[in-house]
Amino acid sequence: MTPLRRLIVRAGRTESAVTIGAGAIDRAAELLASPSGRYFVVAPPGAFLAADRIRRALAGHVFGEFALDDQEMGKTLETVSRVADAALAAGVRRDDAVVAVGGGVTSDVAGFAAAMLLRGVAWNAVPTTTAAMADAAIGGKTGVDHARGKNLLGAFHPPRAILVDPTVLESLPDREYRGGLVEALKAAWVADAPLAARAERRMEAVLARRERDLVSLLTGAIRVKARIVRSDPRDAGMRRLLNFGHTLGHAFEAAGRYATLRHGEAVAWGIAAALEISVRRAGLAAADAERIRRTLARLGPFPEPERAPDLLLPFLRSDKKATAAGLTGILLEGIGRARIEPAVPEGEWLAAATQAHLAPRG
Amino acid sequence: MTPLRRLIVRAGRTESAVTIGAGAIDRAAELLASPSGRYFVVAPPGAFLAADRIRRALAGHVFGEFALDDQEMGKTLETVSRVADAALAAGVRRDDAVVAVGGGVTSDVAGFAAAMLLRGVAWNAVPTTTAAMADAAIGGKTGVDHARGKNLLGAFHPPRAILVDPTVLESLPDREYRGGLVEALKAAWVADAPLAARAERRMEAVLARRERDLVSLLTGAIRVKARIVRSDPRDAGMRRLLNFGHTLGHAFEAAGRYATLRHGEAVAWGIAAALEISVRRAGLAAADAERIRRTLARLGPFPEPERAPDLLLPFLRSDKKATAAGLTGILLEGIGRARIEPAVPEGEWLAAATQAHLAPRG
Repeated sequence: MTPLRRLIVRAGRTESAVTIGAGAIDRAAELLASPSGRYFVVAPPGAFLAADRIRRALAGHVFGEFALDDQEMGKTLETVSRVADAALAAGVRRDDAVVAVGGGVTSDVAGFAAAMLLRGVAWNAVPTTTAAMADAAIGGKTGVDHARGKNLLGAFHPPRAILVDPTVLESLPDREYRGGLVEALKAAWVADAPLAARAERRMEAVLARRERDLVSLLTGAIRVKARIVRSDPRDAGMRRLLNFGHTLGHAFEAAGRYATLRHGEAVAWGIAAALEISVRRAGLAAADAERIRRTLARLGPFPEPERAPDLLLPFLRSDKKATAAGLTGILLEGIGRARIEPAVPEGEWLAAATQAHLAPRG
Repeated sequence: MTPLRRLIVRAGRTESAVTIGAGAIDRAAELLASPSGRYFVVAPPGAFLAADRIRRALAGHVFGEFALDDQEMGKTLETVSRVADAALAAGVRRDDAVVAVGGGVTSDVAGFAAAMLLRGVAWNAVPTTTAAMADAAIGGKTGVDHARGKNLLGAFHPPRAILVDPTVLESLPDREYRGGLVEALKAAWVADAPLAARAERRMEAVLARRERDLVSLLTGAIRVKARIVRSDPRDAGMRRLLNFGHTLGHAFEAAGRYATLRHGEAVAWGIAAALEISVRRAGLAAADAERIRRTLARLGPFPEPERAPDLLLPFLRSDKKATAAGLTGILLEGIGRARIEPAVPEGEWLAAATQAHLAPRG
């Protein structure tokens, strides 16, 4: 067992204390934060093993619970409202805290509920998927989907504490485990070339769920995200780099009605499409694009995305990053070096969606 | 016509620019703020005259509108959701802004919708009632009611600009006009004795809607609120002074199912009750309590509140200010001097609710 690692993510005036390592979850009483010492636990049925460990660790301090339906289709304001109803029924007070135990949908919904309850109570994230560990709660973006697109309603509300415990992944299906790693690799490709190279070298061990290698990749990805979030807490500048692969990724996911592709898989296809634009516009070497595609292919095979322009276009247009000038693109100039392209025309996105490929061609 | 007065309200990192005076609303194009220059207007049918003036002033810059049902019973998350739906359908982008034209319910709902839209777009407040001018948008508390109590869900999201134009009050019914003044007087009683004395002297002119005297009272109240909000943007300390009269006020309002008493009227009764506790616990002189009751009585007569303890108690218990230690009370030591009493027992609140009176007794 590796020792616990601690790091602090600063976003504006708030700080999230991240603890990474096997056994972190069993020390929740000491590592999570609640001004009153009382907790309201939100967890989907699928995370019952982790939720049980949290319940035991917080014995006597849990004043209420909510069993969340964590399907992406259920990531709505209506669900947030039900979480808030349950917390108010349980008697939530300003100095209490919420704990989200689950994947990205759970932290998005529970974090948003915490943001609006009594105009903001503290919350904590205990991610139970590789995707959520690499990405979801760090930086404090919470929110829900809307008929017109993903994450269109929400709040910036960073959790006080995040526990990343690889032992909770034991029951995670392999498809989820692999798809979630896309978010961790994304962070490396955008801003940390040595992390990308190390992850490539150790990919076999990571896929075999070797704890030390997984923790090393997750810690690296969290460090990248912490650095970027710190420089841009409100998502106005550099932080947009973390959206690499997400513009078309979200459109692929929505066009498949959240049924065909998992989030990480859709982002993998979104990255593949962004590579096409990056080679043309940002001077990314063809060999580097191929390196990234090969690494992504090792996480798959992933189901084919919906590529029809008329199906993708409405979702591109409702993207939060769409402004009067067009759609902002995150492009790679090289591995570990990304840039923001203010306005990539819709036609280029749609062409890239058609061209995107993961397995080497030929 | 008096010249326009400008003042800045700082709350945390954000600033609201307040413009006070006749004709402010017709200069909306210059005084409101939108990064893109585009506006989404939210207004109830009752504010159509003011909304028309805003529309004319912003001609060509309004990309969508929402007609809000601004009854207190409609101040729900569901209504916020409908405002957000309409804004998204109209194509709202991150750099656009919302304008709320109406009373306190309108700014509470539209401001909360702006807070969650795309995780936060800018908004502006154009209050059309005396209550909203004295109180609502300043300081950035937005939110909605819940079956379990008032304002239990919301966000801190200060408006960029606030236009306080007394000419929009011409169509305001006298009962609304008078009830709303309670909020302005509250600010004076809590923190500004000279303002309270001046308001008492000029009450006849204020009730006759003499512009100069009304603007003077509103400006004084806004200054008090700006000073307090600046010292405590997140409502953790001094800002609670502004809740004077609101603990029982909210309970009176809710126990009457928002049908018997207007908000300001309920707060007037809440102040009358707080005076009883203040005389007993905070050394408020009986003569000062009587002065305040006489001034409140001039704004009335107000309908009788629901005083039954079993009807009031559930609403007291769901108050956001309730903590494990009891219910925080805001008490007057003298006119212009308030203090926070950490824990006033439920029984004292209920007794004060029974004792509260406005007209001089006997």
